[in-house]
Amino acid sequence: MRLITFEGLDGSGKSTQARLLAEWLREAGYTVEMVREPGGTDISERVREMLLDPRNEISPFAELLLFSAARAQLVAERVQPLLDEGTLVLCDRFFDSTTAYQGFGRGLADPGWLDGFHRKVTGGLVPHRTYLIRITPVEAAHRRRGRSEDDRMEAAGEPFHERVAEGYDWLAAREPDRVHVLDGTRAIELIATDIRRDMRQMLDGGTAGRS
Amino acid sequence: MRLITFEGLDGSGKSTQARLLAEWLREAGYTVEMVREPGGTDISERVREMLLDPRNEISPFAELLLFSAARAQLVAERVQPLLDEGTLVLCDRFFDSTTAYQGFGRGLADPGWLDGFHRKVTGGLVPHRTYLIRITPVEAAHRRRGRSEDDRMEAAGEPFHERVAEGYDWLAAREPDRVHVLDGTRAIELIATDIRRDMRQMLDGGTAGRS
Repeated sequence: MRLITFEGLDGSGKSTQARLLAEWLREAGYTVEMVREPGGTDISERVREMLLDPRNEISPFAELLLFSAARAQLVAERVQPLLDEGTLVLCDRFFDSTTAYQGFGRGLADPGWLDGFHRKVTGGLVPHRTYLIRITPVEAAHRRRGRSEDDRMEAAGEPFHERVAEGYDWLAAREPDRVHVLDGTRAIELIATDIRRDMRQMLDGGTAGRS
Repeated sequence: MRLITFEGLDGSGKSTQARLLAEWLREAGYTVEMVREPGGTDISERVREMLLDPRNEISPFAELLLFSAARAQLVAERVQPLLDEGTLVLCDRFFDSTTAYQGFGRGLADPGWLDGFHRKVTGGLVPHRTYLIRITPVEAAHRRRGRSEDDRMEAAGEPFHERVAEGYDWLAAREPDRVHVLDGTRAIELIATDIRRDMRQMLDGGTAGRS
């Protein structure tokens, strides 16, 4: 019934927030599925391996197309069927990541073209709500330093991540009704509370089915 | 300097014609490279395996994006650098295959959108000449029967291949200067002679560099 997506730089805490929201929704009686991008289907996981392997040299537009192919498969095979049966789907990254990382980060922009392209990729499916967990690129780099290894996207350097952050801000300014910005430097529980408050309003106001 | 592509149904003889033209051009002193789609780079060959494996269920739009990703990588990594150094590149299938197989065959059309999309995928590169070896879907099926096994695209059934053939005819009618149609039911050597005659005119009239 509803697709909720989480966006932000790696290290922003978006995956944690997605998990916390899923737990809360399940406790409230909703049927919830979590998926992550790229991945979630056999084909998409194989594409994911290619994309994140630091040994692979991939041209910028090929990268954009591979992420989009993984998404097309994920939507057709899992997300749309789940939504059709009334499940709430939480997705860790979705097409806004492509706009931010490939459009802005890799400089392939013309975000207007990308917007129409994304809708073809997903068969017209647009997230009902997107939570953008906002931290600065400097903070993101600091947080990532604690991790054991970088994948191919994370290893792309500081100016790249600054452009990605600009891309996210551009999206938030362009679609304020869909994209809700949350200050990712606050405590995890405070961010989660804000997300729950917004979700409660959205679910009470809508027709999303409880299981 | 020049990109020459070969198109047609599987079994049309296009790969044979590409090979014969490459031999003839090399004897005439040209530097020639042959590539095939999907494939030709590490990434593109991995995508090829996914696409042609009959066990994989791939959504139509994901299929279109995977073929296009393989092409974007092939052009960026091999075709454009080869053209830049003056090599003649012969390609067994190129973006017209996507228009015919995914646009028409899979019914994803809006060929106008695809036309603009292809140019983004290739960074604006369009074949200087395309030889479309035309046989009927019935003849193609008959010729394929002699082969040991079908891949995922070839196994798609008769109505699919009829739509693909319509797609090719549509392209030939739309871009007669670029797309030359050859009757694929004629003897191999007669078709090859027609292609050589056209190539001789094109090379004499142009600035393609001999090695």
